[in-house]
Amino acid sequence: MSLKNTHEIDIVRVSSSKIDSVDFDNLTFGTTFTDHMFVCDFREGKWQKAEIKPYAPFLLDPSAKVFHYGQAIFEGMKAYKDESDDVWLFRPDQNFERFNKSAKRMAMPEVDEEIFMSGLHQLIDLEREWVKKGLGNTLYIRPFMIAIGSGVIAAPSTQYRFMIILSPAKSYYSGEVKVIIAEHYSRAANGGIGAAKAAGNYSAQFYPTKLANERGFQQIIWTDDATHTKLEEAGTMNVFFRINDTLYTAPTSERILDGVTRKSLIDLAKRDGIDVAVRPVLVEEIIEAAKDGSLKEIFGAGTAAVVNPIVGFSYQDTYYELPKIENSFALLLKEKLTKIQYKLAEDTFGWTVKI
Amino acid sequence: MSLKNTHEIDIVRVSSSKIDSVDFDNLTFGTTFTDHMFVCDFREGKWQKAEIKPYAPFLLDPSAKVFHYGQAIFEGMKAYKDESDDVWLFRPDQNFERFNKSAKRMAMPEVDEEIFMSGLHQLIDLEREWVKKGLGNTLYIRPFMIAIGSGVIAAPSTQYRFMIILSPAKSYYSGEVKVIIAEHYSRAANGGIGAAKAAGNYSAQFYPTKLANERGFQQIIWTDDATHTKLEEAGTMNVFFRINDTLYTAPTSERILDGVTRKSLIDLAKRDGIDVAVRPVLVEEIIEAAKDGSLKEIFGAGTAAVVNPIVGFSYQDTYYELPKIENSFALLLKEKLTKIQYKLAEDTFGWTVKI
Ligand SMILES: Cc1ncc(COP(=O)(O)O)c(C=O)c1O
Ligand SMILES: Cc1ncc(COP(=O)(O)O)c(C=O)c1O
Repeated sequence: MSLKNTHEIDIVRVSSSKIDSVDFDNLTFGTTFTDHMFVCDFREGKWQKAEIKPYAPFLLDPSAKVFHYGQAIFEGMKAYKDESDDVWLFRPDQNFERFNKSAKRMAMPEVDEEIFMSGLHQLIDLEREWVKKGLGNTLYIRPFMIAIGSGVIAAPSTQYRFMIILSPAKSYYSGEVKVIIAEHYSRAANGGIGAAKAAGNYSAQFYPTKLANERGFQQIIWTDDATHTKLEEAGTMNVFFRINDTLYTAPTSERILDGVTRKSLIDLAKRDGIDVAVRPVLVEEIIEAAKDGSLKEIFGAGTAAVVNPIVGFSYQDTYYELPKIENSFALLLKEKLTKIQYKLAEDTFGWTVKI
Repeated sequence: MSLKNTHEIDIVRVSSSKIDSVDFDNLTFGTTFTDHMFVCDFREGKWQKAEIKPYAPFLLDPSAKVFHYGQAIFEGMKAYKDESDDVWLFRPDQNFERFNKSAKRMAMPEVDEEIFMSGLHQLIDLEREWVKKGLGNTLYIRPFMIAIGSGVIAAPSTQYRFMIILSPAKSYYSGEVKVIIAEHYSRAANGGIGAAKAAGNYSAQFYPTKLANERGFQQIIWTDDATHTKLEEAGTMNVFFRINDTLYTAPTSERILDGVTRKSLIDLAKRDGIDVAVRPVLVEEIIEAAKDGSLKEIFGAGTAAVVNPIVGFSYQDTYYELPKIENSFALLLKEKLTKIQYKLAEDTFGWTVKI
């Protein structure tokens, strides 16, 4: 696969890079940004001239729609550097499609493929130095779109800003991850926006997650809001459950984000003979499996965290600890995926795209 | 009731007002703003110095949390001018309480009552000229708070901006309002943020509302997301149904905003001998009542629109037109409420507060 890189972009470079002031061994996820950003505005019914320019704050009116009505979407992707200093993206077509699916659900204009892909390509190309070699080093890529039109009336904006910013990153989580299974709070409604990467979905989880943190748990596994009997996904990860030697994960739906990591792990598992069942996963069956010892692993899957093993979970005030396991599917799949991303294993699926 | 107005605020005035350039007879709701705005930032665990200054755009980092995670809440209130040129607020205590309830649900810091009330008081006092006399003329007040801390990591911000902006306004809706009863899309989940005035709740409705608009309907009456059998509320209004001579409205819940207009109308109706039942309202019973002729009125209630009569609704592709009615409860209650707000009738409840 290759990127459409035909869109003309005005480029204004910084006079001097700040890269030398960055400690790449001690990065806090999502807080350090590269020298430049990509910006393209939508006005008068169409996308305007695209620009790459020095990363900097910008002005917005106090009545900008994004402040009042949360009309905002984003994507999360990563770039990887291989041993020959080439820089690679992983399935950018998937992020592009999902971005426009989110845009549609939030009544925002879809972004042209040429603008999205050329923006990615030319911005990352300019910032190659920020992508460091070595497993675990990545450049986190954040495409996003916000409603910049003004007016405190609850209706879609007529003006939008599409941007891409880049942040060098190590892995997202550190330490052991314990989760709570949601019994009261929820992240998504039937007929709601759960399947969109819409800004409002994330802040909605902050308070319940804070309550979980206070009880010593890092994350919540959300359940369906109507019955709280089906296990859906975590804050920024889809979730897999291993019972004996089968992996289970919920089908995506209008409540669940269609994760790129999730679908890639499913393909990898299937290719390599691991049994995967995509079907609703009930809280009840996981509790039973935990009790009878057949529940071997739970792990989250998402771009930021890649694969995140979960060491235990709480449900109805009982804590269930997962066994320490030898041949972990989580670690096996993580390794397989990571090797493809860093070009250390053959990419039989054609997922990687060179910048 | 009186406002706590003891908080010290730095005031910087505009050099010349733009008021003379405003056509107060032709205002589009929410698009014209007064000369000044109120701003107070939260940093290092506390609210900083409050300021009133010229209305103007401000700078934000591209990674500001409000852009990525929708951590943003707001309120909507109005100021009214009476015949003696005094300016009045309507139940500001209710908006203040709801603001902090929203803040809590969105993991944002609560605003001190003194800051909220002094901000309202001193800003509106400065902008008295913008509040015009005469029924229907109001100054729409928009307190809001956004997460201004930076970082693309899905966790609460540590920095926030609380602002108040003011917009002179006539009534919100014009023309006849027809609604669709939601059968697939939803605005709120059980255990979600529906009861908070959180930004993300509003953009979530834009797409389904656009679909409704395309079919010739202005608004949607949302139903519970699990079964779509209970009538809940509209985009920015609570909803009342009159069957024979009784008014029905859904109880507020974690899915429904606790509207100030709704609760005031309930009190007014009760005071004046109109039968009100606050209980779940089923789609089924409204359809039956529409068929047998006992459904007399449906109306929305909210600060922007005050009371908004609905002329008909669609459900399962059938359109039900409401009868033209002589002694409309909607218009009667609207008049009673409006008269209190403009100090044309005695405020037996102590709802109005002088600036
Ligand atoms: C809610 C949610 N679920 C799952 C994921 C995982 O998706 P992906 O693997 O595409 O990063 C994300 C994204 O990071 C997410 O925000
Ligand atoms: C979702 C929603 N429901 C109802 C209302 C009505 O509330 P109030 O009467 O306090 O304006 C509003 C606010 O405008 C709202 O946003």
